[in-house]
Amino acid sequence: MKLSARNQLTGVVRSVKSGAVMAEVVVEVEPGSVTAAITDGSAQRLALKDGDRVTVIVKATDVMLGKD
Amino acid sequence: MKLSARNQLTGVVRSVKSGAVMAEVVVEVEPGSVTAAITDGSAQRLALKDGDRVTVIVKATDVMLGKD
Amino acid sequence: MKLSARNQLTGVVRSVKSGAVMAEVVVEVEPGSVTAAITDGSAQRLALKDGDRVTVIVKATDVMLGKD
Amino acid sequence: MKLSARNQLTGVVRSVKSGAVMAEVVVEVEPGSVTAAITDGSAQRLALKDGDRVTVIVKATDVMLGKD
Amino acid sequence: MKLSARNQLTGVVRSVKSGAVMAEVVVEVEPGSVTAAITDGSAQRLALKDGDRVTVIVKATDVMLGKD
Amino acid sequence: MKLSARNQLTGVVRSVKSGAVMAEVVVEVEPGSVTAAITDGSAQRLALKDGDRVTVIVKATDVMLGKD
Repeated sequence: MKLSARNQLTGVVRSVKSGAVMAEVVVEVEPGSVTAAITDGSAQRLALKDGDRVTVIVKATDVMLGKD
Repeated sequence: MKLSARNQLTGVVRSVKSGAVMAEVVVEVEPGSVTAAITDGSAQRLALKDGDRVTVIVKATDVMLGKD
Repeated sequence: MKLSARNQLTGVVRSVKSGAVMAEVVVEVEPGSVTAAITDGSAQRLALKDGDRVTVIVKATDVMLGKD
Repeated sequence: MKLSARNQLTGVVRSVKSGAVMAEVVVEVEPGSVTAAITDGSAQRLALKDGDRVTVIVKATDVMLGKD
Repeated sequence: MKLSARNQLTGVVRSVKSGAVMAEVVVEVEPGSVTAAITDGSAQRLALKDGDRVTVIVKATDVMLGKD
Repeated sequence: MKLSARNQLTGVVRSVKSGAVMAEVVVEVEPGSVTAAITDGSAQRLALKDGDRVTVIVKATDVMLGKD
């Protein structure tokens, strides 16, 4: 399936922290890392664990820019 | 100012396309590029143009993950 | 690819309206319709047109609830 | 009050799971179900419980599309 | 209808700028102003115009914080 | 750093509630208060506590409007 979301980076899961409702997943992409806050139910449904190869997906309307 | 947004990558603006209300800005970050859809008013307020050094900012709750 | 996004509904594209930066896509899902505002670049990349079978995807953190 | 949000579906709450900060609410809409991650404070303010009739609200800019 | 969205401020519309797909609406709330980017279809459906009394609504998960 | 986000209000932190993954921060802005749901990791990174002077930041595409 091709997604409308413009931003899709491949990375490797480095940590998964589960809460009652939400989970925090840190994904190492090449130059740094990206943190995702998803529902813990989704983290379990995808069986996310350290070392998993995943795609980080962000919609263009959710990206902000800062300039010095 | 330190921002709560977990994801902040540095990059260089590669294109700015202006519409009546929105603008699309493509930013080259190291291994690829990120596209932002911001208001054209913001693109003008920041005077965004090719070659500008900018920070790409994404809140963790706006990140999705995909797994094959 | 399995997505972390909790909400995924199948539907049929009923209209695509293109602007300079954004596009509005109306998708008929069973009991009604869903409107998506995506970048026009994405609408073109997916070659979205009337009659296309698509999946409507929404992250749980982007859903609000109202109660009378 | 009429809302600018384009997508508003009526459904019935099927489950409410509370965490320290967030709550996960599953709402049955006609052809399937929608999951919302809202603050637990909001879930309590609306007194959300199984069987409640609610409106699921999603802004068009938060909808993604996927196409095979 | 009570909304799960935690942030609801009352204000007055000061300008509406229409594009092909999106519209930008500036709302004066007490200490300053808030800008909303909504679909132009929604701006027309609500018949938004200068002087309208409106409610500005923002989900808590869409709020970021900055600290010097 | 100047941010593309159109909405930036100054306020004072009134409460921080920490969960396993998320934190809820209530910020008093002049005519009322704004609630932010951010990751608890960010709340700790910014060392947010009552009385802190902070900037509340919201992207225009995340603002909805309601009209009676």
